[in-house]
Amino acid sequence: MQLGIVGLGKMGGNMRTRLRNAGHDVVGYDRDASISDVDSLESLVKALEGPRAVWIMVPSGDPTRDTVKALGELLSEGDIVIDGGNSRFTDDKVNAELLATKGVGYVDAGVSGGVWGLKNGYALMVGGSDENIARLMPIFEALKPEGEFGFVHAGGVGAGHYAKMVHNGIEYGLMHAYAEGYELLEASEVVTDVPAVVKSWREGTVIRSWLLDLLDRALEEDPGLADISGYSSDSGEGRWTVEEAIRLAVPLHVISASLFARFESRQDDSPAMKAVSALRNQFGGHAVKKAE
Amino acid sequence: MQLGIVGLGKMGGNMRTRLRNAGHDVVGYDRDASISDVDSLESLVKALEGPRAVWIMVPSGDPTRDTVKALGELLSEGDIVIDGGNSRFTDDKVNAELLATKGVGYVDAGVSGGVWGLKNGYALMVGGSDENIARLMPIFEALKPEGEFGFVHAGGVGAGHYAKMVHNGIEYGLMHAYAEGYELLEASEVVTDVPAVVKSWREGTVIRSWLLDLLDRALEEDPGLADISGYSSDSGEGRWTVEEAIRLAVPLHVISASLFARFESRQDDSPAMKAVSALRNQFGGHAVKKAE
Amino acid sequence: MQLGIVGLGKMGGNMRTRLRNAGHDVVGYDRDASISDVDSLESLVKALEGPRAVWIMVPSGDPTRDTVKALGELLSEGDIVIDGGNSRFTDDKVNAELLATKGVGYVDAGVSGGVWGLKNGYALMVGGSDENIARLMPIFEALKPEGEFGFVHAGGVGAGHYAKMVHNGIEYGLMHAYAEGYELLEASEVVTDVPAVVKSWREGTVIRSWLLDLLDRALEEDPGLADISGYSSDSGEGRWTVEEAIRLAVPLHVISASLFARFESRQDDSPAMKAVSALRNQFGGHAVKKAE
Amino acid sequence: MQLGIVGLGKMGGNMRTRLRNAGHDVVGYDRDASISDVDSLESLVKALEGPRAVWIMVPSGDPTRDTVKALGELLSEGDIVIDGGNSRFTDDKVNAELLATKGVGYVDAGVSGGVWGLKNGYALMVGGSDENIARLMPIFEALKPEGEFGFVHAGGVGAGHYAKMVHNGIEYGLMHAYAEGYELLEASEVVTDVPAVVKSWREGTVIRSWLLDLLDRALEEDPGLADISGYSSDSGEGRWTVEEAIRLAVPLHVISASLFARFESRQDDSPAMKAVSALRNQFGGHAVKKAE
Repeated sequence: MQLGIVGLGKMGGNMRTRLRNAGHDVVGYDRDASISDVDSLESLVKALEGPRAVWIMVPSGDPTRDTVKALGELLSEGDIVIDGGNSRFTDDKVNAELLATKGVGYVDAGVSGGVWGLKNGYALMVGGSDENIARLMPIFEALKPEGEFGFVHAGGVGAGHYAKMVHNGIEYGLMHAYAEGYELLEASEVVTDVPAVVKSWREGTVIRSWLLDLLDRALEEDPGLADISGYSSDSGEGRWTVEEAIRLAVPLHVISASLFARFESRQDDSPAMKAVSALRNQFGGHAVKKAE
Repeated sequence: MQLGIVGLGKMGGNMRTRLRNAGHDVVGYDRDASISDVDSLESLVKALEGPRAVWIMVPSGDPTRDTVKALGELLSEGDIVIDGGNSRFTDDKVNAELLATKGVGYVDAGVSGGVWGLKNGYALMVGGSDENIARLMPIFEALKPEGEFGFVHAGGVGAGHYAKMVHNGIEYGLMHAYAEGYELLEASEVVTDVPAVVKSWREGTVIRSWLLDLLDRALEEDPGLADISGYSSDSGEGRWTVEEAIRLAVPLHVISASLFARFESRQDDSPAMKAVSALRNQFGGHAVKKAE
Repeated sequence: MQLGIVGLGKMGGNMRTRLRNAGHDVVGYDRDASISDVDSLESLVKALEGPRAVWIMVPSGDPTRDTVKALGELLSEGDIVIDGGNSRFTDDKVNAELLATKGVGYVDAGVSGGVWGLKNGYALMVGGSDENIARLMPIFEALKPEGEFGFVHAGGVGAGHYAKMVHNGIEYGLMHAYAEGYELLEASEVVTDVPAVVKSWREGTVIRSWLLDLLDRALEEDPGLADISGYSSDSGEGRWTVEEAIRLAVPLHVISASLFARFESRQDDSPAMKAVSALRNQFGGHAVKKAE
Repeated sequence: MQLGIVGLGKMGGNMRTRLRNAGHDVVGYDRDASISDVDSLESLVKALEGPRAVWIMVPSGDPTRDTVKALGELLSEGDIVIDGGNSRFTDDKVNAELLATKGVGYVDAGVSGGVWGLKNGYALMVGGSDENIARLMPIFEALKPEGEFGFVHAGGVGAGHYAKMVHNGIEYGLMHAYAEGYELLEASEVVTDVPAVVKSWREGTVIRSWLLDLLDRALEEDPGLADISGYSSDSGEGRWTVEEAIRLAVPLHVISASLFARFESRQDDSPAMKAVSALRNQFGGHAVKKAE
């Protein structure tokens, strides 16, 4: 079927390729003219026959919200907009209501798979009405992995991004569990070949996973991870997961600890630990290391 | 080759079967005569030709230590004992030194795979001398999974159990990350089909893993996990992992939180939260729920 | 000076008393006629001479917001409204802007001291303009404790509630630190008289504090805390503190763990630990306790 | 009464002074001749009349153990040794049994108060037999703070150090709760005078404490804590507290998080976060900061 894509970056560009490989007719628009199929959002809409489907794959927050608004002006009754970016699920209801005033449908899609998605397929978690999702199934079928799994209609509008948010929260926790085990092995004198241990875990163990395969890959490229810094940014899903846990009174020790570790990775020195040092100096005369 | 196995429970019994399927000559001893091949440890040793190899697969702690001592009395120079149980790595040096006085070699083997190992193979992490491990390779080859991974010679005596200990520490963290995500999805009104979301994650996502496959399996059997209690015991490796982190000054937020959650699962009421309730009542006159 | 108080519950009622004891002219309004000085909010406003000051001491959220709106209708230019309840700091800006359209000033006041405030004074953290706060100083002076401390003008509108929010977040962490120590002492066989240890800590130690005094008091009343349940509600400030930490990328391990412990105290069984049990059963055949 | 003190450092030296001020006859020995009253441990023992009491105030671990052994050679039946250092409680039983073979008594004393103890008194938590502790009461009375609290006979041998260990574990948690609140206030734009807020909390609030007084003092000396590094060592009690929690299956989220924060304060970069960065780069092509 025919699909418009707005945003042809690392994700959107590869998705256009995967869809075309599957025989779909994709028109892509990007602000970067060198990779764009058309010269404007208006041209994109004109290039599609109604009823249209337009997939937004731009950064979450204002860029996505602005694109939804702009499409609201350009699209017609019966068209559908899909937000495939990493939007907070609370944006979806707002977007859907805005578009509904024009008779335009809305579907949110959480997309996982990263740079491997082009080849392996993208796991999709979608939210919206049965009708809209049924219309888009050919697209979803082409994007998702080949096997039995990798696609879910998780609920109404917002449920796709919600499922993806929780997926990413879990991802934080999984990565940090492996990371802690790795740090402990490196710190110990007992195990002498840490990368070999990690590699061996890839089969037969309880902890085998795709992330473990990737950790092995990273250690093959750089045993000891000497060339990599611990500095780690975050794109919001981890924060939103903990915010939801607070809203719903769900204890989230592991995922919040993983989130806080990212915050710490971006600090030169911990203000909290400065306060602890100051206190220890006050009551115990403990020597304090001067800030450099 | 020929191998004696002491302990034919859930693990040892299946390992005997897998080794025999691979053509090895296995003599098993268990206190339960109905599953034992011989009637005593002495008979086991007599049934093996020297130089012998005897694999201990009994509960860690005193049962394993006692078996090592007993074998030390029965075995001869050049024989090898393998401890394949979940022993603390610090036991290994003691065991190895005891046996060394008789000229008996010692290898420690961390074994992962649970009830699935019979079919899929057991991941093995072993510690000991190059010579002893080379002699045992036919056994390791038969036990391990078929593929490229699933076996590592992690270092000297103790390194096998150490690697297994960290493996289990990571396992705690991974399970709890999935568990937190599951609880959040269940608590939320946004996602309406939680088991379907979990199932979809099995392919194409960053968080796909064997544990996730098992979570899907559990939810198929009992969506909502209504019939299962959160009460969860622990067999020591998680505790030892955190103890090692303390010894080596490694921060272990995620794994320790997962360990503490198990402790909490076994409490009827939290003594700490009783103290918090008491304090809130003292300063704020906050209503306190009476213990029942 | 003259002050109107809206809300004469546990906090507002005692504050009226403390202010009257200090010679101030206080008119209180409460929906409960048996404790109210006037029969309506309108009567309250009429009973005060301009320029008026009205202190709101009702539950946060809608009750406070509604009272602000109602007062906005009744008050005149030059009057001041003080919100002394436990409102989220983000409400303050909204309230201030609403009242500003009528020329009515706004001050937010975080109030600590609980049921002890009547006698010991209330610690006050206030936010607003220098001018408004200067006008209210006689009230603040009468409410605050006698000594040097216990009052701060923390910043502009919202800063008072913000400081109080962080105060409460710290309070969560402090209480849980004592609570964990208490639980450990109770669990151990080494210390035989736990209440005596707690009592002894009240002087000379690094951990002496008012909360410790209260813990001693609670243990005097109920050694072993046998009659108290760990069930503990929360009034929002702990949640907001962690939400702010997420917004500002501040790691908050201790305070968030204390918050999560409250959530856990309200669960009959942990859904996360049910998932862990289910997983352990799947891979290891570990016995699972059936839910009752 | 007469007392020998071994170790006249920051703690032991001040304790000698406080005891002499109270009229006791104290003979101190230190390896540093310039502060020692006698030239050897042997001279110290000779200078005391039997039955003797000797208080050890040297670093825990080997220095304390060696001093106990040396005193065991020099002392006579009926003498008492007190270990007032920060020893692990598990050392006490060993020390007591060693001395018991010579008929020498043993008491363990946890001592809190830091550099403030000389003036304010030292909080004492002691373990041992009723008889031995009764004999030492004049010393304990002189050392402890003047008021009602500050001394406890916590149980048999080891109970004093155990109570002190838990005290220090709680201390870790309390300090970190304040530290997190401080960091959040500093990070926020809402509160504009953080030191003033902290100072105000010293009276009337739920969180008032001696540690809070010290935090105010530290901020007076260095608002913003610009000259202090977060690097913070640990002297063992926090680690032992968590080890005990593991032994006794007590969840210790807050205290362990505070301990881990100290470990983190001593790392230039987090190996765990390097692993997380490596993973994110592997699956998402997320830009990775190169190690410098």
